[in-house]
Amino acid sequence: MWFKRWLLGRPLATTQAVHERLSNPVGLAIFSSDPLSSVAYATEEILLVLVLAGTAAFHYSIGISIVIVGLVAILTTSYRQIIYAYPSGGGAYVVAKSTLGEFPGLFAAAALLIDYVLTVAVSVAAGIAAITSAVPELHEHRVGLGLLAIAILTWGNLRGVRESGKMFALPTYMFVGGLALVIVAGLGRALFGAPVDHPLPSVSAMEGGVTLFLLLRAFSSGCTALTGIEAISNGVPAFRDPAPKNAATTMIWMASMLAGLFLGITLLAHIYGLVPREEETLISQIARISFGGGALYYFMQVATMLILILAANTSYNGFPRLAGLLAQDSFLPHQMRNVGDRLAFSNGIFILGLSAAFLLIIFRGDTHALIPLYAIGVFLSFTLSQTGMVQHWRDLRGRGWKKKFAINLTGAIATGVATVVLAITKFTHGAWVVLVLIPILIGMFRKIRWHYNMAEWQLSLTMYDRPKSPPPNIVVMPIGSVNRPVIIALDYLRQRAQDIRVVHVDVDPEETAKVKEDWEKWGAGVPLVILPSPYRSFLEPLLDYIERVRQESPGGWVTVALAEVLPARWWETLLHNQRALLIKAALLFKFRVIVTDVPYHLGPY
Amino acid sequence: MWFKRWLLGRPLATTQAVHERLSNPVGLAIFSSDPLSSVAYATEEILLVLVLAGTAAFHYSIGISIVIVGLVAILTTSYRQIIYAYPSGGGAYVVAKSTLGEFPGLFAAAALLIDYVLTVAVSVAAGIAAITSAVPELHEHRVGLGLLAIAILTWGNLRGVRESGKMFALPTYMFVGGLALVIVAGLGRALFGAPVDHPLPSVSAMEGGVTLFLLLRAFSSGCTALTGIEAISNGVPAFRDPAPKNAATTMIWMASMLAGLFLGITLLAHIYGLVPREEETLISQIARISFGGGALYYFMQVATMLILILAANTSYNGFPRLAGLLAQDSFLPHQMRNVGDRLAFSNGIFILGLSAAFLLIIFRGDTHALIPLYAIGVFLSFTLSQTGMVQHWRDLRGRGWKKKFAINLTGAIATGVATVVLAITKFTHGAWVVLVLIPILIGMFRKIRWHYNMAEWQLSLTMYDRPKSPPPNIVVMPIGSVNRPVIIALDYLRQRAQDIRVVHVDVDPEETAKVKEDWEKWGAGVPLVILPSPYRSFLEPLLDYIERVRQESPGGWVTVALAEVLPARWWETLLHNQRALLIKAALLFKFRVIVTDVPYHLGPY
Repeated sequence: MWFKRWLLGRPLATTQAVHERLSNPVGLAIFSSDPLSSVAYATEEILLVLVLAGTAAFHYSIGISIVIVGLVAILTTSYRQIIYAYPSGGGAYVVAKSTLGEFPGLFAAAALLIDYVLTVAVSVAAGIAAITSAVPELHEHRVGLGLLAIAILTWGNLRGVRESGKMFALPTYMFVGGLALVIVAGLGRALFGAPVDHPLPSVSAMEGGVTLFLLLRAFSSGCTALTGIEAISNGVPAFRDPAPKNAATTMIWMASMLAGLFLGITLLAHIYGLVPREEETLISQIARISFGGGALYYFMQVATMLILILAANTSYNGFPRLAGLLAQDSFLPHQMRNVGDRLAFSNGIFILGLSAAFLLIIFRGDTHALIPLYAIGVFLSFTLSQTGMVQHWRDLRGRGWKKKFAINLTGAIATGVATVVLAITKFTHGAWVVLVLIPILIGMFRKIRWHYNMAEWQLSLTMYDRPKSPPPNIVVMPIGSVNRPVIIALDYLRQRAQDIRVVHVDVDPEETAKVKEDWEKWGAGVPLVILPSPYRSFLEPLLDYIERVRQESPGGWVTVALAEVLPARWWETLLHNQRALLIKAALLFKFRVIVTDVPYHLGPY
Repeated sequence: MWFKRWLLGRPLATTQAVHERLSNPVGLAIFSSDPLSSVAYATEEILLVLVLAGTAAFHYSIGISIVIVGLVAILTTSYRQIIYAYPSGGGAYVVAKSTLGEFPGLFAAAALLIDYVLTVAVSVAAGIAAITSAVPELHEHRVGLGLLAIAILTWGNLRGVRESGKMFALPTYMFVGGLALVIVAGLGRALFGAPVDHPLPSVSAMEGGVTLFLLLRAFSSGCTALTGIEAISNGVPAFRDPAPKNAATTMIWMASMLAGLFLGITLLAHIYGLVPREEETLISQIARISFGGGALYYFMQVATMLILILAANTSYNGFPRLAGLLAQDSFLPHQMRNVGDRLAFSNGIFILGLSAAFLLIIFRGDTHALIPLYAIGVFLSFTLSQTGMVQHWRDLRGRGWKKKFAINLTGAIATGVATVVLAITKFTHGAWVVLVLIPILIGMFRKIRWHYNMAEWQLSLTMYDRPKSPPPNIVVMPIGSVNRPVIIALDYLRQRAQDIRVVHVDVDPEETAKVKEDWEKWGAGVPLVILPSPYRSFLEPLLDYIERVRQESPGGWVTVALAEVLPARWWETLLHNQRALLIKAALLFKFRVIVTDVPYHLGPY
């Protein structure tokens, strides 16, 4: 326990959860680390595809980048409408579910969960690549360094979100400022300075000439620049009032920066005639030439790493929150809904960290290997959001709805086309994994929901025909010999005068009110004790109470009775009894305490 | 359950345990497979040491073999006395403990347990080598084949010992007959026949000349021929009346066969000038030359394999029985004492099989690698037995005790010297493992005994100050919401009229009588139900009874209360609660059954 405290900090009371509202510059820094950081690898990914047709094909990168910037503009306009329509935060799951129905919602949710994991893996891999570009000796340790970064992120997020706000502002602006300086310096040097003293390697075509398919593949790879662009629209309530307006303004700023930096980098790479290399990232090459090495170059690499790590952190907000929403709707185990005593969704954070670490190990920390899996999920959820908004405006038909309808329709068509392009061009390079995983996840969601529905029906009191008097009980005690434990157990069984106290820990006032009301009706006169829990912990107030009861009757027993739900299939136990398990583990070695499980068997269905 | 039945056969009632008494020829076959089978490798092991001084040193093998046969004679004479002194079976543990005290007894027990495991590993490895000598293609699969043999042995023994008796006679006599034929044919061919058409390889010295140490090492390796020689003395009660006389006679027969075959093989190897080879065993080479290949040769290899596998089987009788004796004396966990429903010590059989498989894997199924660990334990227990007998005669001083005293003294000195020679010459080749393991095992035995002593003291009722009236009980039931399981649990807790039935399964009539008597005194008027158990199973009669109680009160609950001992240290839980665990596992998914653990915490000591 002390270890947990030391690691995660003291618990935070529910009342401490008042939102820390963000100013626009801080909000920009927090929500933009994900999209802005993708500038660090998007251009390189485009060139990595074009290089297959030889360096001669590199001039296509300019055109491709302009198309992508066009997509940024369309998406930004579309998302500004979502900000106003869903001021409480409209993730793709919420939008698609409320406008298109459950199945599209789950589709978006599955795509997003996968992409959150990939965001962590890709960003961490790219962040480590920024460092190993500057210090090549570390290249062979990149998996270990990546795992370390994931461990730190997971730990930081288990400590809770309160600290993370301000941490973000600095690295984001360091990166944006630094990269702007790189571009200005680079363009300046190219236009007015000495000719660049850099060998221009020329690679000849490996896969034949430039085909349409190759250009589309390059476009698909470049689309990673758009990942995370929707972050601001998910986080509207975090802005100061008027939140939607501030968020919409911030979105414009973010999009402008993204477009400017992305175009600038692509242009510089073209001017310098750079070729992607295994040991050094493209923007490391650019920064090295622009700054001519030295302190500024290293500063740039550190800033790149920091913003990428912080981009990974965006998923640590998004994944657990989405998992929590899904758990709320019974599509994931209910324990994903639990907010830890530091006000963080601990279970979701933990699962995200584990999955990302798993991916990083499988793909050996290689950004390029992960990229083909990436973005497809993001674009699927873009398309579903936009389509949802199209439906939204058709249903609503408010003032000037046709214009809004047209904007989102454009967004839906643009992202839809991009999704199809992505799926086709990257299918054999890894996108198939995502396309297989999504239906599996959807199946899982529905299976879990179905179980909870069936269980709820079986647990409900509405149809319960309570026996007139409590059913009889026969106690069987097998003994091997007559000894102290046997006699003590016998005397425990012989006592009749029982003092029954039903206890409810007040984690959620609404739930507590319901329990009180229900108990009036069903409690058969047995008293109900309500235990306050300022830190939302279920266990600690209960253990304290049991301890007090033990003190109350020094020689006596305390029987802790647990009404336990036993499902018919083994995997369903994962969906129940988490609390019962915790209680049993905590009481295992307590003296004079007896735990009795009263099982309730769920029938098969 | 049906799977267990199918695998192990229907349970056997305790009354079916009447001993199947053995005639002398059958007894000889059963108890001699271990010593006689060692002829299959003993000569080879001598030559493998002598070859280090070149083939020129091979003629020493004759002298060494004669010394070993001398040891056989001394030991046989000594053990005949043990047969008469301990007609109920005198293993080294029993003899050493009753005459020399607890520590020498544990010393012998530790040495024996290790050697039982080694007997299985060595015999199986040598048995597989007999087959791979005939079919070299199987050489690379020797570990897999060895594991298969161990699995079959373990399975056969879990089925119980009843079937194994007659199975033994045939292979033993096949081997003895076949080998006698090999020797006769071989000697005939050498004396009267054509000169052997076999290249005589000549190996020059690898480790300098013949030293005393080398000769002693060769002697040590040859001592493996003596392993198992004591088997008959452990199994006296299995013989027909007059058991001691029949056993003693059988012992002479066994010793004569052993001496004859061993000398014959050594002589033939010398006459043929054979050199041990990696791919083919020495006796395979001898048989091949004597029979000139063909069906008789293959028959001989199969017989060799069979007797070696059956030699391994000897340990499957010895190890579990010794472990059971140690458990009876609380030196091993009490569950080693349990006789399964097929009248076999299932736990011991299982542990032996696992340990031998482990050894076989570590040493890659190589007989020569295992040999240095072998025999030292056997000789330690020989020495302790003989020394114990020396003490026995000094204490007893019956008619003609001096002669008996002198015989056992000779045995003790001879085996003592051999033990020291073994320990020194094989120390660096692996004997150190055994010499390290023995004190560890002894420490474990004593630690376990100490725990049981302390626990017994804490469990005893003699000093128990029973409270005048049963201590009070407060029931705490934590609830999250009010639903069916909660209300059902509440009604369970609210009922007061309890019908308590204390149940004892009559596995051992003596124990049951004690329980009845104790219950009179301590039972506080609560009825005691005795359940008969013809198959000694604890669980099945209990589950049947619980089922009957469930039928008896169709709508009601059955609470199964377990008085559970909770030790202070985790490893101590291995020494308790085995039955409680079984009961809980069996009742886990039973409807209307509630298991209540009433813990009894052992204090630290």
